[in-house]
Amino acid sequence: MNKVFALLVLAGVPLSILGGLFHWPSVVMFAVYCVTIIALASYMGRATESLAIVAGPRIGGLLNATFGNAVELIISVFALKAGLVGVVLASLTGSVLGNLLLVAGLSFFVGGLKYKRQEFNVYDARHNAGLLTFAILVAFVIPEVFSLHMSEGETLSLSVGISVIMIILYVAALYFKLVTHRGVYQHKSDEVEEHEEPEWGKGKAIAILALATLAVAYISEKLVHTFETVAESFGWSELFIGIIIVAIVGNAAEHASAIIMAYKNKMNVAVEIAIGSTLQIAMFVAPVLVLISLFFPTSMPLVFSLPELVAMATSVLLMIVLSNDGDTNWFEGATLLAAYTIMGIGFYLL
Amino acid sequence: MNKVFALLVLAGVPLSILGGLFHWPSVVMFAVYCVTIIALASYMGRATESLAIVAGPRIGGLLNATFGNAVELIISVFALKAGLVGVVLASLTGSVLGNLLLVAGLSFFVGGLKYKRQEFNVYDARHNAGLLTFAILVAFVIPEVFSLHMSEGETLSLSVGISVIMIILYVAALYFKLVTHRGVYQHKSDEVEEHEEPEWGKGKAIAILALATLAVAYISEKLVHTFETVAESFGWSELFIGIIIVAIVGNAAEHASAIIMAYKNKMNVAVEIAIGSTLQIAMFVAPVLVLISLFFPTSMPLVFSLPELVAMATSVLLMIVLSNDGDTNWFEGATLLAAYTIMGIGFYLL
Amino acid sequence: MNKVFALLVLAGVPLSILGGLFHWPSVVMFAVYCVTIIALASYMGRATESLAIVAGPRIGGLLNATFGNAVELIISVFALKAGLVGVVLASLTGSVLGNLLLVAGLSFFVGGLKYKRQEFNVYDARHNAGLLTFAILVAFVIPEVFSLHMSEGETLSLSVGISVIMIILYVAALYFKLVTHRGVYQHKSDEVEEHEEPEWGKGKAIAILALATLAVAYISEKLVHTFETVAESFGWSELFIGIIIVAIVGNAAEHASAIIMAYKNKMNVAVEIAIGSTLQIAMFVAPVLVLISLFFPTSMPLVFSLPELVAMATSVLLMIVLSNDGDTNWFEGATLLAAYTIMGIGFYLL
Repeated sequence: MNKVFALLVLAGVPLSILGGLFHWPSVVMFAVYCVTIIALASYMGRATESLAIVAGPRIGGLLNATFGNAVELIISVFALKAGLVGVVLASLTGSVLGNLLLVAGLSFFVGGLKYKRQEFNVYDARHNAGLLTFAILVAFVIPEVFSLHMSEGETLSLSVGISVIMIILYVAALYFKLVTHRGVYQHKSDEVEEHEEPEWGKGKAIAILALATLAVAYISEKLVHTFETVAESFGWSELFIGIIIVAIVGNAAEHASAIIMAYKNKMNVAVEIAIGSTLQIAMFVAPVLVLISLFFPTSMPLVFSLPELVAMATSVLLMIVLSNDGDTNWFEGATLLAAYTIMGIGFYLL
Repeated sequence: MNKVFALLVLAGVPLSILGGLFHWPSVVMFAVYCVTIIALASYMGRATESLAIVAGPRIGGLLNATFGNAVELIISVFALKAGLVGVVLASLTGSVLGNLLLVAGLSFFVGGLKYKRQEFNVYDARHNAGLLTFAILVAFVIPEVFSLHMSEGETLSLSVGISVIMIILYVAALYFKLVTHRGVYQHKSDEVEEHEEPEWGKGKAIAILALATLAVAYISEKLVHTFETVAESFGWSELFIGIIIVAIVGNAAEHASAIIMAYKNKMNVAVEIAIGSTLQIAMFVAPVLVLISLFFPTSMPLVFSLPELVAMATSVLLMIVLSNDGDTNWFEGATLLAAYTIMGIGFYLL
Repeated sequence: MNKVFALLVLAGVPLSILGGLFHWPSVVMFAVYCVTIIALASYMGRATESLAIVAGPRIGGLLNATFGNAVELIISVFALKAGLVGVVLASLTGSVLGNLLLVAGLSFFVGGLKYKRQEFNVYDARHNAGLLTFAILVAFVIPEVFSLHMSEGETLSLSVGISVIMIILYVAALYFKLVTHRGVYQHKSDEVEEHEEPEWGKGKAIAILALATLAVAYISEKLVHTFETVAESFGWSELFIGIIIVAIVGNAAEHASAIIMAYKNKMNVAVEIAIGSTLQIAMFVAPVLVLISLFFPTSMPLVFSLPELVAMATSVLLMIVLSNDGDTNWFEGATLLAAYTIMGIGFYLL
């Protein structure tokens, strides 16, 4: 698998540069950019992983919590710069739906085909349920409703206020999890952590992380400029590109590892990737993008379209109800996948 | 009780035929039709029950899961044929509210007057909570919101897509419950199933089921044509007829048996009837009606009126919160009945 | 603390009378009225507490359940009399948000700084979760949605119907808690109730309660007439005054005692004050005000503004998800406080 990604990077980066210079057709380049970013993202993931192991659990947790969605963040910054606020909100929605329904759904389903019942830490599940409720049902719903009666300036002030509060609470959640309550809610059986060896040394990992990030940034800028042409060619809306395509490209690497973990019966890790990633998008990436957008000509308020918000809110409710018992099986996975398909059809037709 | 139903059938069927031939007043015939259908429904229920016992738990579960709401389905098909899409959606809403709030409420209340605490299988409750969330909060809410920005054709495409997915997931739920995970989540104490004797042999049961179904179909067609006159005579809206009257007529037999089970402290069975029936309506009857409606002049999209949807969604949330602990008492029943009364007043005034 | 309140009453009541006679500036008197009411409320709370101890747990519970929000009720009646329906609905919203998010949030946070995990009775939490769902998500949401399609008269009929049902269910809840199921859901460890001595004898407590109530009524009438001027002076909306100011003045005494209880690790009591008070506002004070408003020129339907309703509904969902495990920590408190801040910003900007 790693060899495939190495080949894709070795082929994709030069092709991306050449295609840009010689103005190859947008649709072709869109595909090249997507594949190359996925391959580069896997390198960023492995470099972060190595650094996290070297740095120990606290700093490591922090690294994972900030670099875990770096690709998504980079693509979104370039889309914001290009004024594509709608695409950015759509890709945030897509990441939330993709992680909560598709990644978790596939993990539960694939894991459930092999094991009759899989258990995960119910305390973590409830902690995450509280954060999901806060992030989606409070922090995303409030500006949606209140902005109906607000001027644009007031809506932006509210969005900035909420963003600052979300980032503070996200940092507090890390402090809670990594410092004050580390291991407090852990089952005895979870304690036996395997001693892991980092794949790369500290220097090499940092170098790879830096290079891959630069390459992702370079290609992301080109990618966002193909959206309009691709949308026209395939008859897709920009919404659909944001929700399905960008979200899958930005999260492909994580998706794969969650499902592999579920298949190995490490359901705690699989759930942590799926829901942890959702929370990172909602409580860190989204508010950071709101704040960054203040430096661009077009600011982004934290106001999703109604279909986006309702899709996210109902997904959160479904996940909370399903994960409440700390137990998964293939049917819970099928339920999540069915919900994802319904929303996919909805956004395609919209 | 069975003798009463026998008399009602013996009197009701001829009266229904005569009344139709001699054009008796619609309001009188409305009452005759309703009572006769309730009596016939009890025969269909007993025939299904006998067949289920003969056929063993797997096929039996399947029979119950498909014939359990046959009367509702038949009435709705004739209403669809008459173009009364609003009445059909209202009667689906009424069945969901009736089962979730009225039947469960009466069961909890009546059972709770006799027993201080009644317990039911909390795993089943959570499994059902997941399905309720999926069916009402995802599959019913999504088309409601998305259709605001859609053409009629797109709304119908979305409705058909969702209906197909719901039926597949409903079949998957049966497969999960009857095959792959049969008994996996059962308490030890639940295992001692009583050996039941079927009331009727296989041949007799099939004959009664066939005859009763035919009679219900015949009377249902006549019933739906009285709605307009009855609505005018009593000053009721078609919505109110659908939500309260049709729903009660279509489900009367089940209602009675759930309450009897609760009184016998078999709370597992009572809850299974109330919530199982809700799920059958939402995940099987409703999508099947959407698909059948494609063959009639007026198609039915899966788009309820906002009051209907909100009433169902809040009922589901209330039931999930109340059943989360696997424990019932008279006050939980009173809460459900209070919610039903509030919604009844609301729909009456609408 | 009690001495401070005694001084405030001794200074505040004469100042309130003098200020009214000599027409001192509204903004100054607004502050005087608020402080005096807070001080008087603490006397009413202590008198109720003493009477409750004298009268035994059943009558005592009843006393707490009816006099607990007497101040809020009195202010609201005078606001209704002055036709300020919007302010009353806003102050009901403010009390719900204040109790659910601010009081509970501070209790969890302050308690959590001292103790790593604090537990409370999970059965009570679930009982309360059911009532919160009923009161806010059913009884408040239904008239909001249904009234969109109703005339004013129908909306008022629905509001009256719902109010009567809520009061009946509230009384039933007291009967359930104090009579039929007293102690049924109690942990063994909770049983050791301390024998409390009343602060004041029966006669003295009744006299103080009566005098303080009269004084609160006198000052409340004056307070509501300062709202308009104060709103203009500070650029606040009446909504903001109702939601933040009136709610804090009406509930200050309870707020303090909940936090003290949390700090003493009596989390059961702290939660009971915060959530019990919310339920009292929603299921008793709000419907009683609807019924009282029928005797005034301007009737009050049970229809909140959409931002108010959504703020309450999302707060209830957040509280249900967080309290589901019967366990609190500082981070859960921080989450509730973050939600309160978001809503505060929203209502300020509105």
